[in-house]
Amino acid sequence: MFVTFEGGEGAGKSTQIRRLAEALKARGLEVLVTREPGGSPGAEALRHVLLSGAAEDFGVRMEALLFAAARNDHVETVIRPALERGAVVLCDRFMDSSRVYQGVTGNLESEFIDTLERVAVDGVVPDLTLILDLPAERGLERARGRAEPGANGAPDRFEKEELETHEKRRQGFLDIAAADPKRCRVVDAGRPVEAIAAEILALVEPLALDLRRTERPVTAE
Amino acid sequence: MFVTFEGGEGAGKSTQIRRLAEALKARGLEVLVTREPGGSPGAEALRHVLLSGAAEDFGVRMEALLFAAARNDHVETVIRPALERGAVVLCDRFMDSSRVYQGVTGNLESEFIDTLERVAVDGVVPDLTLILDLPAERGLERARGRAEPGANGAPDRFEKEELETHEKRRQGFLDIAAADPKRCRVVDAGRPVEAIAAEILALVEPLALDLRRTERPVTAE
Repeated sequence: MFVTFEGGEGAGKSTQIRRLAEALKARGLEVLVTREPGGSPGAEALRHVLLSGAAEDFGVRMEALLFAAARNDHVETVIRPALERGAVVLCDRFMDSSRVYQGVTGNLESEFIDTLERVAVDGVVPDLTLILDLPAERGLERARGRAEPGANGAPDRFEKEELETHEKRRQGFLDIAAADPKRCRVVDAGRPVEAIAAEILALVEPLALDLRRTERPVTAE
Repeated sequence: MFVTFEGGEGAGKSTQIRRLAEALKARGLEVLVTREPGGSPGAEALRHVLLSGAAEDFGVRMEALLFAAARNDHVETVIRPALERGAVVLCDRFMDSSRVYQGVTGNLESEFIDTLERVAVDGVVPDLTLILDLPAERGLERARGRAEPGANGAPDRFEKEELETHEKRRQGFLDIAAADPKRCRVVDAGRPVEAIAAEILALVEPLALDLRRTERPVTAE
């Protein structure tokens, strides 16, 4: 079973992944926790290129191709083998982050994004995608490590722009969920950690146990 | 005008490109000579990744995605700007090398190759592709720097396999030419350098002068 976690910064994805992994392991399931970009040696090598000085002048299309190459390596060398041996794979960000960060706020045509997604994932589509949803303002505050909302006073112009971008991404994730309700669940990430963890476990557990029973083979499209 | 040179190793591509560039410059045309993989800073960075130790375990799909990313950078930062200012661009290997090396002898599905080609070149397709054709055996001998065919006696098993691969690639290039006769010309590379250069100039010159007259704009698809 393949579960991906999506959402803006500060939504608490890594905390929830850790808790879900512990809960599933306690139920005797093999769990693999991974993340993007990265997650495999080839993808890490690309991560290095993407973050190096050489990448400064990369165009958005080349960058998207590099992300696709990293994702394909991650899928083929880590995710697909884990799914084939029956593990539950929990991944921090996956294809929906590309749709949102490169498509919605990166100005790449959706046809281009779709094409790259298809070749990168090669049939390995999440069984369940949990979108941790939070108002942009609260996510940014959490990401910045502020104790109190508005602790630094009213936002300046730069912060306002950042907020707008963040809000567009939030809407992007919600649009993906609305378009694909079978795969996606929106989880209100504004509640206490315990409550979110309980809702996520309630969503994942029956599916994980069900999939283990049917032992559905994982194959390329 | 965008002219690409294709063919196996030892076919004399770089010699012919140099001669053609000189002849066109003598006629007052701006000429840009470039090559793949590489040809731009981003593509060179990827070339480094492709040749580094980290790339040893890369799958064929990831490798193809990296080549596509390098090509896209080369197209957007070097080739398209040169074409837009009216230069003649001569490129040593381009998309047909991917079709042959990754498709014909690399076991990647042609649909995957086609998709990547489309996103990588983004409408910048060669006006003319010159396929320098040579029997596999002669090309390999030239690439190895042997003075005489068969100088080392009969080929061993490894050389026979190499020869078969080389012959498959040769056929791959000829198939591309047959499928796209408007863009491609097969040039017999088994003749003296002077004769080949004369034929190539006769093919390119009228087209170059004609295109200069019409000043066709270069745009994405």
